[in-house]
Amino acid sequence: MTVTGNKFKFDVIYGNKRSKARAGRITTPHGMIDTPAFVPVGTQASVKSLTPQDLKEIGVQIFFGNTYHLHLRPGEDVVKEFGGLGKFMGWEGPTITDSGGFQLFSLNRRTTPIKTRISADQRIDQRESAPTLVKIKDDGVTFRSHIDGSLHEFTPEKSIEIQKKLGADIILAFDECSPYPSTHQYAKQAMERTHKWAQRSLAEFKVQSAKFKANAYQALYGIIQGGVYKDLREESAKFISSLPFDGIAIGGVAVGESKKEMLDVLDWVVPLLPEDKPRHLLGVGEIDDIFDSIERGMDTMDCVIPTRLGRYGFIFVSPPEGNRKNKFMIDIKKSIFAKDQRPIAKDCKCNVCKTFTRGYVHHLFRVQELLAYRVASYHNLYFINNLFAKIRKSILEGRFEKLKKEWIG
Amino acid sequence: MTVTGNKFKFDVIYGNKRSKARAGRITTPHGMIDTPAFVPVGTQASVKSLTPQDLKEIGVQIFFGNTYHLHLRPGEDVVKEFGGLGKFMGWEGPTITDSGGFQLFSLNRRTTPIKTRISADQRIDQRESAPTLVKIKDDGVTFRSHIDGSLHEFTPEKSIEIQKKLGADIILAFDECSPYPSTHQYAKQAMERTHKWAQRSLAEFKVQSAKFKANAYQALYGIIQGGVYKDLREESAKFISSLPFDGIAIGGVAVGESKKEMLDVLDWVVPLLPEDKPRHLLGVGEIDDIFDSIERGMDTMDCVIPTRLGRYGFIFVSPPEGNRKNKFMIDIKKSIFAKDQRPIAKDCKCNVCKTFTRGYVHHLFRVQELLAYRVASYHNLYFINNLFAKIRKSILEGRFEKLKKEWIG
Repeated sequence: MTVTGNKFKFDVIYGNKRSKARAGRITTPHGMIDTPAFVPVGTQASVKSLTPQDLKEIGVQIFFGNTYHLHLRPGEDVVKEFGGLGKFMGWEGPTITDSGGFQLFSLNRRTTPIKTRISADQRIDQRESAPTLVKIKDDGVTFRSHIDGSLHEFTPEKSIEIQKKLGADIILAFDECSPYPSTHQYAKQAMERTHKWAQRSLAEFKVQSAKFKANAYQALYGIIQGGVYKDLREESAKFISSLPFDGIAIGGVAVGESKKEMLDVLDWVVPLLPEDKPRHLLGVGEIDDIFDSIERGMDTMDCVIPTRLGRYGFIFVSPPEGNRKNKFMIDIKKSIFAKDQRPIAKDCKCNVCKTFTRGYVHHLFRVQELLAYRVASYHNLYFINNLFAKIRKSILEGRFEKLKKEWIG
Repeated sequence: MTVTGNKFKFDVIYGNKRSKARAGRITTPHGMIDTPAFVPVGTQASVKSLTPQDLKEIGVQIFFGNTYHLHLRPGEDVVKEFGGLGKFMGWEGPTITDSGGFQLFSLNRRTTPIKTRISADQRIDQRESAPTLVKIKDDGVTFRSHIDGSLHEFTPEKSIEIQKKLGADIILAFDECSPYPSTHQYAKQAMERTHKWAQRSLAEFKVQSAKFKANAYQALYGIIQGGVYKDLREESAKFISSLPFDGIAIGGVAVGESKKEMLDVLDWVVPLLPEDKPRHLLGVGEIDDIFDSIERGMDTMDCVIPTRLGRYGFIFVSPPEGNRKNKFMIDIKKSIFAKDQRPIAKDCKCNVCKTFTRGYVHHLFRVQELLAYRVASYHNLYFINNLFAKIRKSILEGRFEKLKKEWIG
């Protein structure tokens, strides 16, 4: 029995007995999510440059807001007054918020938590929005706003309170994401703190759910930590699975470790997870990682890659032009595309590919037109969303391995 | 008989005998334009942040590209390879390009050619894209690119050649826009040069039309100059009207002169213009100016105000909230809008007003989300376009004066 009971539902189907890859359906009060599903990020209550209408056209089923940013601006009380995150931004479908922990810890460490080849640009992005001072204690975290230097405190209770007000369908327990690399000792300490905070998050969730009856529909996911250490990950997987969470998120990956290390984590953790709860992988979204993590039994994952790399002019293309080596992307800013009259991606059915040529999108990036960022974000999100739909179909038809082979060999 | 003959057509209807205000229809090979019509500016082959699909939804009938910018990037040969300006950017409707003259002269003088209250910001905008070196001779103008410092020359012949390749439905003769203030002597010299260039533009237009048969559909407008001097404006109006242009544009207004001076120019010029040619007013788009210039017999006008001021957070609202004093705009960045759950503009039927609240758009501007610029541009363009449709209807129904009174008193 989970904390939310029957207000949140997850059905799961395996395509065949050979594979851990699974298709499912999450039912939330704001709609259903067919899994595996990609979850685009709308940090400040906006998936950058796109409208809710765009997200609907693209086929987005759920999007991810960041509690740290929304707490600072416009503040959870404003969002609550407008009827919650979805209503505030004009989005009728399901939403998810994180606990704020990732921003507090990872950004502050001036690391590059999201894997990408253009990490220099990203580092700057993240530094600009990083809190300037963070102090971690067992009770919680104090930090200064990156906007005006004001002092704030996040505790498990505070994070849940904020997320209750933001009103997303799925919210996350407050956790500590240890950096990469971390010593075994530090990763253990962060994991143990995460476990205590998981229990406090659950307790506060019950209190708040009783208090704000209107938002009692929310589901709460616990987060598994433990760095790249097998014993810690196994301990964390068992502990978080033992608590009455509605779903399980795997955190602390895509923070700088190798692909092999990330897949090891999934290989250790997944066998210990309950079959009947949805599994979310935090911050993962490169195409090979998508296949590899779905193969290991992940249901949903969020990532800024399609929109952020899109804004830098990196645009998804299908095989054979797209491949593991080029990460299925072309750099549309390159001069070879200046006179290219083909659509961005062969066979892509999105509005951008139906309307614009590579040459025109190249021009938009070269002259830094605002439309550049919009069309690239739209196409990339459509492309990834469509890939998830293809993957889901392939699982249901028992040919996921074949599709994976076609894409990443 | 005009230079283009029957490939371009204009029909005009006056609502009543008391008023010079007129409704009409321009027929071009890419579609019809019901006048009075607003012409949004898409300087670099993009109406900033908006797609052609947006323009269609908004009801835009024609848009305005800038020859100076398009010549530098991507270059007219690239645009021609893609099938012309409209096809290059995925827009199926009519287009118009300027001669390049306005950018060469006005921007170079470090003035503020577009009237607005936020002129400081605009000045910076314009300085950044201004040519760094301009030399004007009777033969033409040499200048350095603001992008890479490369040397270029525009002559009437070159301007026509470029515009032939860009392939817009309506193109403009090369002119010299004298700055405000100018001495009578300088304004006269610039006007005389403009007249000679008008004749050379016409001659080259015939040569090029014979050469590029595919683009023989283009219509050519002459431009009236003469600063704020009655004798010059009258002389220019007579001279340009005597030539076989397809339409007449009035240039050299909205360059810093007072509203009264601008209206004087229209009062002097309009009685001397042929009734059967469409009249375009260059660079005008504040709401009171729209009413005042349509009242004086203008058919079309282009302006960056709806999109540029939109990007600064100035958003059009209807009377009574909008009035002459606030220029029918609210500054959505102001904190009074943070919790405002109303749509941006009462009774506005645009997608932005249907989807978003003032509070949310305020948030987008405060956190500098890309979507802010898009939704403000969309709404503002819809608002102005819709106002033109209302004005057209009022003229056809003989109640233009009444509508004008409701809006600007």
